[in-house]
Amino acid sequence: MSDATAAVCCSEILTIGDEILRGDVVNENAAHIGRALAEAGVPARFSSVIPDDLEAITEAIRQALARAQVIVVTGGLGPTPDDLTRDAVASCFGFPLVEDAALLTHVRELFRQRGMAMPETSRNQALFPVGARQIPNAHGTATGIHVICDGRHLFALPGVAIEMRQMTDEYVKPAVQAAFADAQVRTRTLRLSGIGESHLLEQLGDQTEVSALVRIAYLPHHGLLDLRLTALSPDEYEAAAQIAFAEGFIRERVGGHVYATGSTSLAEVIGNILMNRCQKLATAESCTGGLVADMLTNVPGASRWFERGWITYSNPSKNEDLNVPGGMLDEHGAVSESVARAMAEGARHRAGTDWALSCTGIAGPTGGSAEKPVGTVWIAVAAEGGVWARHLKFSGLRETIKLRTAHAALSFLYQHLLETRA
Amino acid sequence: MSDATAAVCCSEILTIGDEILRGDVVNENAAHIGRALAEAGVPARFSSVIPDDLEAITEAIRQALARAQVIVVTGGLGPTPDDLTRDAVASCFGFPLVEDAALLTHVRELFRQRGMAMPETSRNQALFPVGARQIPNAHGTATGIHVICDGRHLFALPGVAIEMRQMTDEYVKPAVQAAFADAQVRTRTLRLSGIGESHLLEQLGDQTEVSALVRIAYLPHHGLLDLRLTALSPDEYEAAAQIAFAEGFIRERVGGHVYATGSTSLAEVIGNILMNRCQKLATAESCTGGLVADMLTNVPGASRWFERGWITYSNPSKNEDLNVPGGMLDEHGAVSESVARAMAEGARHRAGTDWALSCTGIAGPTGGSAEKPVGTVWIAVAAEGGVWARHLKFSGLRETIKLRTAHAALSFLYQHLLETRA
Repeated sequence: MSDATAAVCCSEILTIGDEILRGDVVNENAAHIGRALAEAGVPARFSSVIPDDLEAITEAIRQALARAQVIVVTGGLGPTPDDLTRDAVASCFGFPLVEDAALLTHVRELFRQRGMAMPETSRNQALFPVGARQIPNAHGTATGIHVICDGRHLFALPGVAIEMRQMTDEYVKPAVQAAFADAQVRTRTLRLSGIGESHLLEQLGDQTEVSALVRIAYLPHHGLLDLRLTALSPDEYEAAAQIAFAEGFIRERVGGHVYATGSTSLAEVIGNILMNRCQKLATAESCTGGLVADMLTNVPGASRWFERGWITYSNPSKNEDLNVPGGMLDEHGAVSESVARAMAEGARHRAGTDWALSCTGIAGPTGGSAEKPVGTVWIAVAAEGGVWARHLKFSGLRETIKLRTAHAALSFLYQHLLETRA
Repeated sequence: MSDATAAVCCSEILTIGDEILRGDVVNENAAHIGRALAEAGVPARFSSVIPDDLEAITEAIRQALARAQVIVVTGGLGPTPDDLTRDAVASCFGFPLVEDAALLTHVRELFRQRGMAMPETSRNQALFPVGARQIPNAHGTATGIHVICDGRHLFALPGVAIEMRQMTDEYVKPAVQAAFADAQVRTRTLRLSGIGESHLLEQLGDQTEVSALVRIAYLPHHGLLDLRLTALSPDEYEAAAQIAFAEGFIRERVGGHVYATGSTSLAEVIGNILMNRCQKLATAESCTGGLVADMLTNVPGASRWFERGWITYSNPSKNEDLNVPGGMLDEHGAVSESVARAMAEGARHRAGTDWALSCTGIAGPTGGSAEKPVGTVWIAVAAEGGVWARHLKFSGLRETIKLRTAHAALSFLYQHLLETRA
C-alpha cells in the first residue's frame, strides 16, 4: 500500500472464520459492514477473511491497524473453543482478559429468558479486555469490543448476523460518523433495469467529461444494473455538484432505465406505485416457484398491496386454481405465451386485483427439449387495460434462471405500471 | 504468517471490486471458490477483497504469491475502465498484453449470437498476457488467465457469477486437483436441525478424545447448524479413520438431529423422502411469502414431488383458496394455531396431496401487538395421519424472521416425515 493511499481516511473489515474461507457460509456480514462504513464516510479499502487461528487473527489486526483508521472485526466472539477474537484483541493491545460480573449476569439472564440454564462453556462470554469499551448485544451473549488507540478505532463484533447487524447499525456506524465527521464521501447509486453493461457504455458515449469529476462503478445483478457514482473532490459542496452533474449526464442518455436511487429495490418501487394508486397485485408463478412473491413480500408493509400468490407447479394446479384451459396446456404446453397470459388473467380474476404477474419456464437442469431448451421463459402482466406477454431466453444454473426470470418479471411489471398512469 | 503455516499447502482468494468492499454486492464468488478449493484439497488460508486499483491489485497478487501455492483472482476482467486484473497479472509476471486474433473472433461471435454488434469498448476482451494459458469462458467475453510459475498456480476469472462458477468447476478445480493430488484433506460436514450451538456442546460433553483427531467448526444458519469435521492427520487412511471416529462420536450423542452430510439441503432431503414414497407436497404460506416454496423448488426435479403452493397473504385468500372459515379468522386472528392448522388441511385437500405445510406469522417491522408481538409464528403440517402445529417466537429483521420461519417449517415437516414411515 503506498503512502498516498494510506493518507486517505479508510477502513478495513476482518471476517474471522474457517467456514467463510471454505465457502460454507457466504460473507454477508462483510457486505453489511461495508455498506455501513461507506455510508458513514469511511469506506473500506481492504477486506479479508482470516482462519480461526490466534496467530493469524492477531497478525491481521496488527496489519490492519497499520493501514486503516477504522477496523471492524466480525466473528470469533462465541463460546466455542475456535472463538479466538477476544484473545487476539487483548493480545494486540496488551489488555488483560478479566471476567466481568455484570456481563456474567447478562449472559445468565439471556439463557434464563430462553428457559435454559447457562452451559458452563458459555461462561467465557463474560471475559472482557480491561481498557476497552463494551458494545451492547441485544440479541446474544457475545458483548462487542471497542478500542480507541492512537486515533484509530477497532470494533470487534460477533459473527451471528442479527447481532452483528444491530451492533453495526446502532453502535459502530454512529461512532464512526462522530469520530470522522469531516471524512464524508459523496456517493450516489442509480439503479437501472432493461439495459446491460456493454450497451449502457455505448449509450453513454464519451465519458471524458464525467470521469474527470466522478468515478463510476458498474454493478450488474442478474439482469438489473447499478451505477455507483463517487465524487472525486474532497470538498463537500464541490462533491455534491460533481455527483449532480454526473447524474444529469446519465439520466439524459439512459434515464428511462433508472427505476430508483440508493438502495431502494425494484419490489419496493413497485409496491410504492401500487400503494399510491390504492391498487393490488397477485402473482402466478411456475418456474420461479415463489421467488417473485418472496421478493415482493420482503418489502415491509407488502400486505397493503400484495393480495395473494399461486405457485402452480403442476398442470392440474394451473387449471384448477387459475382456470388455464386443459386443452391449452395440452396443445401449447405449460411453457407458452398463451399459458403465461392465461395464468396472469386467471390470477387477476381469482384474486380480484388490479394487476397480476405470471411466469412459466424451464429452470432446468432437466425438462428442456430441442424446441424449448432449458432457460425458455414466458412472463405476462394482466391489468384492466390488457394482457402483455414477453418471451425470454436465459442460460445458467437453475437458481440463476429463477433469479433472472424473477428480475425480468418485476421489470416487465414496472414498465407496464409506468405506461398505465393511474 | 509463520513459516509453519506457510509450509502447509494452501490457497488464497482475491476478489476484485469496490462494489464488494462497499457491500453493494455480497461476495458469493469467494464462497463458491472457497468450496471448490476445499474440495480439491487445497483449502483457502486467506481471502481478501481488493479495490479497483491497479497498484492495490498488483500488490495483493505479489503478497498472495509469497504465501500460497494456489491463487484464485475473481473480478476485474470485464470491458469497463475499472477492470484492471488483466493488467495487474501481466505486470506481476512481466508478460506483455497482446491482442489475440482468436479471442477477438470469439468476442465478436458472442455479440453476434445475441443479435448485437461488438461495442468498441469490448475490444479489450481480446487482450491476453503472452505466456499464460487461456481458461475458456462459455458464457461471456472475458477469457480467464492461468499462470504456472515456480510451482505456484494463479487463476484469474471474471466476476460474473455464472462465468466464474463454470470456469471454477470445469477448469480450476480439476487443475488444482491434478497439480496437488497428494494434498487431499479429509473433511466431512454433518448437517443438524432442531439443536443450537450451546446445547449441542452440552450434549457432546467432553470432546478431548475427538479434538485430538479432528477439528470441528460450528456453522449456524438461521436455526440450522452444520458441523464441519477436518481430520488432523496428513495421511489419507488415518484421516479417514479420524473422521469416521468423530462422526460416530457425534451421531451417538445427537444423531437424531443429523438430517444430511455434505452439501445436501434440508429441502433436498425432504424431496428425496417424498420421491421415494411417491408422495406429493403442497405449501400454504402467509408470513414467509413464498420463501418455503422457493427453497423447495430450488431442488432440481422438484416438480416430481412438489405439487403446488399458495401465498395467502390476505384473509380473503385464506378463506377462498384454502377454505379457512371466516369466523375462525375473525375469532382467532390470522396468526393462530387454528388458522395454521386450517391452512395446512385446506392446502392438502385442495391440492389432493399426501402432505401440506403451512406457516402464518408476523414478520414485522409493523403488525405486532402486545399479545402477538413481531416474530410470533405458527407452523403446521397436515398428512393422512393427522395435523400437527407448533408455536415459534423469533426476533430480528423481517427477512431474518422469514428465513428462520422457513427453516423451522422445513425442519418440522422433516421430523413428521421421519415419524410417519411409509
